[in-house]
Amino acid sequence: MASLASRLQHSVTPNALRSYLAEFLSTFFFVFAAAGAAMSTRKMMPDGTSGSDASSLVAVAIANAFALSVAVYISANISGGHVNPAVTFGMAIGGHISITMSIFYWISQMLGSVSACLLLKFTNQQVPTHGIPQEMTGFGAAVLEGVMTFGLVYTVYAAADPRRCVHAAIGPLAIGLMVGANVMASGPFTGGSMNPAYSFGSAVVKGSFKNQAVYWIGPFIGAAIAGLVYDNVVFPAAQVTESLRGIGGGIVAV
Amino acid sequence: MASLASRLQHSVTPNALRSYLAEFLSTFFFVFAAAGAAMSTRKMMPDGTSGSDASSLVAVAIANAFALSVAVYISANISGGHVNPAVTFGMAIGGHISITMSIFYWISQMLGSVSACLLLKFTNQQVPTHGIPQEMTGFGAAVLEGVMTFGLVYTVYAAADPRRCVHAAIGPLAIGLMVGANVMASGPFTGGSMNPAYSFGSAVVKGSFKNQAVYWIGPFIGAAIAGLVYDNVVFPAAQVTESLRGIGGGIVAV
Amino acid sequence: MASLASRLQHSVTPNALRSYLAEFLSTFFFVFAAAGAAMSTRKMMPDGTSGSDASSLVAVAIANAFALSVAVYISANISGGHVNPAVTFGMAIGGHISITMSIFYWISQMLGSVSACLLLKFTNQQVPTHGIPQEMTGFGAAVLEGVMTFGLVYTVYAAADPRRCVHAAIGPLAIGLMVGANVMASGPFTGGSMNPAYSFGSAVVKGSFKNQAVYWIGPFIGAAIAGLVYDNVVFPAAQVTESLRGIGGGIVAV
Amino acid sequence: MASLASRLQHSVTPNALRSYLAEFLSTFFFVFAAAGAAMSTRKMMPDGTSGSDASSLVAVAIANAFALSVAVYISANISGGHVNPAVTFGMAIGGHISITMSIFYWISQMLGSVSACLLLKFTNQQVPTHGIPQEMTGFGAAVLEGVMTFGLVYTVYAAADPRRCVHAAIGPLAIGLMVGANVMASGPFTGGSMNPAYSFGSAVVKGSFKNQAVYWIGPFIGAAIAGLVYDNVVFPAAQVTESLRGIGGGIVAV
Repeated sequence: MASLASRLQHSVTPNALRSYLAEFLSTFFFVFAAAGAAMSTRKMMPDGTSGSDASSLVAVAIANAFALSVAVYISANISGGHVNPAVTFGMAIGGHISITMSIFYWISQMLGSVSACLLLKFTNQQVPTHGIPQEMTGFGAAVLEGVMTFGLVYTVYAAADPRRCVHAAIGPLAIGLMVGANVMASGPFTGGSMNPAYSFGSAVVKGSFKNQAVYWIGPFIGAAIAGLVYDNVVFPAAQVTESLRGIGGGIVAV
Repeated sequence: MASLASRLQHSVTPNALRSYLAEFLSTFFFVFAAAGAAMSTRKMMPDGTSGSDASSLVAVAIANAFALSVAVYISANISGGHVNPAVTFGMAIGGHISITMSIFYWISQMLGSVSACLLLKFTNQQVPTHGIPQEMTGFGAAVLEGVMTFGLVYTVYAAADPRRCVHAAIGPLAIGLMVGANVMASGPFTGGSMNPAYSFGSAVVKGSFKNQAVYWIGPFIGAAIAGLVYDNVVFPAAQVTESLRGIGGGIVAV
Repeated sequence: MASLASRLQHSVTPNALRSYLAEFLSTFFFVFAAAGAAMSTRKMMPDGTSGSDASSLVAVAIANAFALSVAVYISANISGGHVNPAVTFGMAIGGHISITMSIFYWISQMLGSVSACLLLKFTNQQVPTHGIPQEMTGFGAAVLEGVMTFGLVYTVYAAADPRRCVHAAIGPLAIGLMVGANVMASGPFTGGSMNPAYSFGSAVVKGSFKNQAVYWIGPFIGAAIAGLVYDNVVFPAAQVTESLRGIGGGIVAV
Repeated sequence: MASLASRLQHSVTPNALRSYLAEFLSTFFFVFAAAGAAMSTRKMMPDGTSGSDASSLVAVAIANAFALSVAVYISANISGGHVNPAVTFGMAIGGHISITMSIFYWISQMLGSVSACLLLKFTNQQVPTHGIPQEMTGFGAAVLEGVMTFGLVYTVYAAADPRRCVHAAIGPLAIGLMVGANVMASGPFTGGSMNPAYSFGSAVVKGSFKNQAVYWIGPFIGAAIAGLVYDNVVFPAAQVTESLRGIGGGIVAV
């Protein structure tokens, strides 16, 4: 109990609270742009039917890439720029963030996502949810989401690698581009989420949790494996302290 | 009166005048590309009707992202790279630029936008103005524009944050990507302005000020909140002097 | 005569020859991608008619932005990364490169462009040339091209500005994005060249020099004004020696 | 024999094995996004016929650019970020990586590509292979692929150039943009591969090796010439040791 109290105390310092605010804001703006782009393309289709052709895919993938790059950028030197419960989980697996703090990160990210989807409802349009087409199984979709999230979390680890000197500056961009590329590849198959908070937010606002498990189990497993592979195989000598909770902008506030 | 004279004097030094020129040029090129892309996509539509499908949205959003990134880049180490009256207002709220100087910034930005729209008229096409569709209220549009401008100004603050070492290089890019992502999300709903000077310029040239207030009130409130949140909550210890007027390229000229 | 001989001698040093090779290669790859993208979109249109809708514009503008960024990047620390006779002219006006050397730059750039267009002919498709639609005058097109080239050369100067410390890394990207944004705005009006070598190469291979003057006079005047404004107004104290011939990657080889 | 044994020993150190893993993962994610985007656009076409219009080209080119930038980024400071047998060959020609090690790189890259294509089959869609249209000859396609691979490998050399200080940070991005621009130019003509492993992986999974030679011979010749030109003409004084095997992130692990 004393341990729990001290952990909680560690999780409510001014800097920790600032991290939660940063995660809330970054997830808000990421989900706003990603889900908003899906709504915009649907509204713009001349026929008004499904809103799915190659240019819609381009719009959504670019919105994901741009928005995630900025979302990571603006929170990098405050919270480490996770913007995603799976990334937080992948960091927790590697011991770079405590479980207690992770829980506060998750809550902040989910609140950010729900808030963004509520704002989008303001436009009198249906908020789109992640879904899978008939020819795919839930298992197949979870595998696909898991593999893509592996790539995302591996990129986050690579961007935070202290050995990376010359290219460190474009870390947030690399993270955004990874998600953009994956959305382009998986859009019509799983919707390309890689982010449980994003899937959760749109499901809450629409009130439909169909296939929700796919978007949690796949990404969490992929993230865990990425963290374990990077820390133990790719960079075994890493002496990364817990304070390095993500890609920090030079100074990490804990 | 003496105070006013000294303030004015402070606002017409060679370096201050250079800042106004930089803001004029940057806003000119931003509005030229953003409004020009909207005109180009309209002209290219085979049917020639509304010019609105998903690929038009992609074109306009990318033009916004690319053009704003460059516009901020070329003026960053001269004027701080505002390119937007709302950003200037957000900086003034935080005390990073004087009110007198802000007024000169605003005038330069509006002149730049009007000039760009006048040049675009040269192509014998209608310059498009920002507008909102039937199903949205002016209040809803102002809220949307306000939230998105919050994101933009928050990004400007984050990019100018002296704690940001490693990722500072891509600051202008992050600012452009934030606007590009927001345009993708809001294009068919508010037009995605976040920039009163841009909305003003196209309205002047078209001679129609319908809904103009939406594009001033929303962004100004969003910008003010962003400045207050960043300076007081996210980075309370910030000892940023007035000379740091935006994202400077290492050297700030005042 | 002695002076001419010494100038020529100065222009054929190993490093100077390397610069010409770098300009040849960079212009080759820029024109290959820019003109090639226009050909690809034309070939892909289902109807096979004009190849002009908003997604073609996106393809061509992005190809321009990506290709110019790389072209400048790979030649920056060898030749200064001009890739464009108008940029070379703008640098010569500011005294940053000698007239003799400029002429060799121009020849290299034009040879690069012609070679790229010849390779593209290999695909058995018509190489597209820059042209202006009926409703625009040659004068109007020249003004538009001139203003856009002003923006491009101003960006080159800003990227080479020794005062720019923090953002210097993304200089080549900023230059590419400026051209991409301008192509998005001007595509259906002037074709968006800003580069006399590009317009020249495609005209040579197609054997049609209609409106060619538009794509030389406009850009050269715009480039000259940009150089004069930047050196005398924006950065009057600039002590830039001739060896700084463009945006160098830290080391400039002359 | 002793020499061979020692070479093999040099090729199975922990750091060497890490490089192979890095190449496997990077090639996996690059091919997953590039081939996946082609499948996505095909699935999204309303008519379901060929999946080829300008917006498909944009989707595929952007997926290539984004995915290759990240793939190079995440492996740069481990394996040098080749992600492509032709790049490895171009580096071997310049003596920057041993032949023995190159072979392990090639195997890793091909395994990565095959694995990615197998995962994509999971979606119950045909994995697309690289092919050439009727009006082009195999020789023409090989020339086109060769020239584009020259550009790619030249960019890799330029990004690894130790003289490049200021712009080094965006090296992985430059490499990705070069491929994106080339895909935009060559998509409907050769498919825009520049990467034998990518072409091999999709061919294996589809079981069709038609024109496979085009995608090996062209790129290998282009890569070899690029390496020779850069090392001997552009940067003859280069004292690059074998340990510099590509674009390293400041620290190279051998």
